[in-house]
Amino acid sequence: MNIDMIRAAASRLDGHARRTPLLNSPFLDEMAGRRLWIKPECLQHTGSFKFRGGWSAVSALEPETRARGVIAFSSGNHAQGVALAAQAHGVPAVIVMPSDCPAMKIDNTRAYGAEVVLYDRVRESREEIGATLSEERGLTLIRPYDEPQVIAGQGTCGLEIAEDANRLGIKDADVIVCCGGGGLTSGIALAFEADAPTLRVRPAEPEGFDDVARSLRSGGIERNNHLSGSICDAIVSPQPGDITWPILHRLAGPGLVISDDEALQAMGHAFSRLKVVAEPGGAAALAAALFRADEINGEDVIVTISGGNVDPAMFARALETLA
Amino acid sequence: MNIDMIRAAASRLDGHARRTPLLNSPFLDEMAGRRLWIKPECLQHTGSFKFRGGWSAVSALEPETRARGVIAFSSGNHAQGVALAAQAHGVPAVIVMPSDCPAMKIDNTRAYGAEVVLYDRVRESREEIGATLSEERGLTLIRPYDEPQVIAGQGTCGLEIAEDANRLGIKDADVIVCCGGGGLTSGIALAFEADAPTLRVRPAEPEGFDDVARSLRSGGIERNNHLSGSICDAIVSPQPGDITWPILHRLAGPGLVISDDEALQAMGHAFSRLKVVAEPGGAAALAAALFRADEINGEDVIVTISGGNVDPAMFARALETLA
Repeated sequence: MNIDMIRAAASRLDGHARRTPLLNSPFLDEMAGRRLWIKPECLQHTGSFKFRGGWSAVSALEPETRARGVIAFSSGNHAQGVALAAQAHGVPAVIVMPSDCPAMKIDNTRAYGAEVVLYDRVRESREEIGATLSEERGLTLIRPYDEPQVIAGQGTCGLEIAEDANRLGIKDADVIVCCGGGGLTSGIALAFEADAPTLRVRPAEPEGFDDVARSLRSGGIERNNHLSGSICDAIVSPQPGDITWPILHRLAGPGLVISDDEALQAMGHAFSRLKVVAEPGGAAALAAALFRADEINGEDVIVTISGGNVDPAMFARALETLA
Repeated sequence: MNIDMIRAAASRLDGHARRTPLLNSPFLDEMAGRRLWIKPECLQHTGSFKFRGGWSAVSALEPETRARGVIAFSSGNHAQGVALAAQAHGVPAVIVMPSDCPAMKIDNTRAYGAEVVLYDRVRESREEIGATLSEERGLTLIRPYDEPQVIAGQGTCGLEIAEDANRLGIKDADVIVCCGGGGLTSGIALAFEADAPTLRVRPAEPEGFDDVARSLRSGGIERNNHLSGSICDAIVSPQPGDITWPILHRLAGPGLVISDDEALQAMGHAFSRLKVVAEPGGAAALAAALFRADEINGEDVIVTISGGNVDPAMFARALETLA
């Protein structure tokens, strides 16, 4: 896992992933107490940065392997990223999703051309189903974060932030990244190490699911006690990944932890000040910049809005925080 | 009013206005029955394309004139565009607003550094107040659309669409533009005449306020019967402008008319499929592409989302259309 893989992924993504800008707003600057820059990956294809990793992984496969197709376990953003990347490459994608998953997510994943295989969360093992399908059809499994080519794809987001920060003269800034398994955070950290070594990556996580923040404090992998219970579902994961953790341990600054209510408030501010749609997990870094200002150093801070796949009812809750 | 003024405005805006992308979504393509491309000017500074015209007009003034300051009558997007442009140039801006205007709009305009002068809609004339202030302080009036340098600024949006359309190989497409007084529509039309003559501009307006559509049909300036009554307030104006009309008459294709409810639905789809926030008037062109497909020609269509300054209660109504 190194910077050359990220640069190679950037070449493969060129013309396919969206080059998202850095947004800002004087209102948010005032709230944050410093200049605040926002990388809106909610504007990426499929509504999250996960398209980068999906494209990177699918495009990195040998043509013969790729032609047999890919498989992913996900009910969320990774599923959509892999599905669209496979569709654009003209190869099959199988997405294994729990049968109690919202119909809209199943419909969306199918609309990106994927075959959705449903399983019973209680009585079946998705790993067994996946293993059987992979063997039968020769599908390649694409993991959501513990997969070098996926991390390389997410790292392209870091190359773009580094380029824009250098152009804007931003130095010594914290870059807060919404963090689940650490694919985006570790990819960005590797990109900065090469292209913007004065930028420091810091993970943002929801309360009760701050495995990365605790791991960074203790120096070893810490687990979460629960696997659900936050509205920030996109960044709830059991523990840092085997591949992402050593990178985070070496390069990331202290984690920032925000509440679900703060994530909703940040979604509201992204709505009124940036005109973009953030999902709760995608707003965690913005929430940290707005509500943990005293834990942040420097005149500038950069945050990712990592995704915007949120249903209308949850978004209505975010709007209510503005009243 | 010519293309050279637009190119000169583009030079002055370079590095100051945001270069907005063209977004797309397979879901919206399917609804529209063709490839649909969206220019999200809601992501522009101040949340609408009006920043382009404001910056163009302020930056075009002679330094001595500019130093005395500028004045605008507006409670909406034009006010914010002019205010931020003046602030960035370090010159005073006076915005004359009705005293019954929502407090948030007054606060926002002040936050961009402008002096807000309130007047009583019933008992006072904003023109008289403005004339007195202008004379006393030597302020330059910046009109919202019937002003060549404002049209030139809005035209820079057309240069960008033309460049992206040429790059994407889009030809013979209708480009639907949310249309009030016609500043954006006429500016884009002039840009296409020079840089993308196979693209055709078409205005989108709300029912009951389709003065431009009717003017294009009759061949002469037609007025609206009312000055309010649509939620698409940003694009409600009495009639085409004296400067914008001859340009529209010469270059624009037939107008498209949408209902308020269709604007709300389009806002909902922009939320779920593009992750951007559109205001009702800013969603008119998207609504036309989605709900007037049989009045549109070609395999591609391009629309502007011209602004995103919408309050949470109105946005909640748009979310309800998705249920």
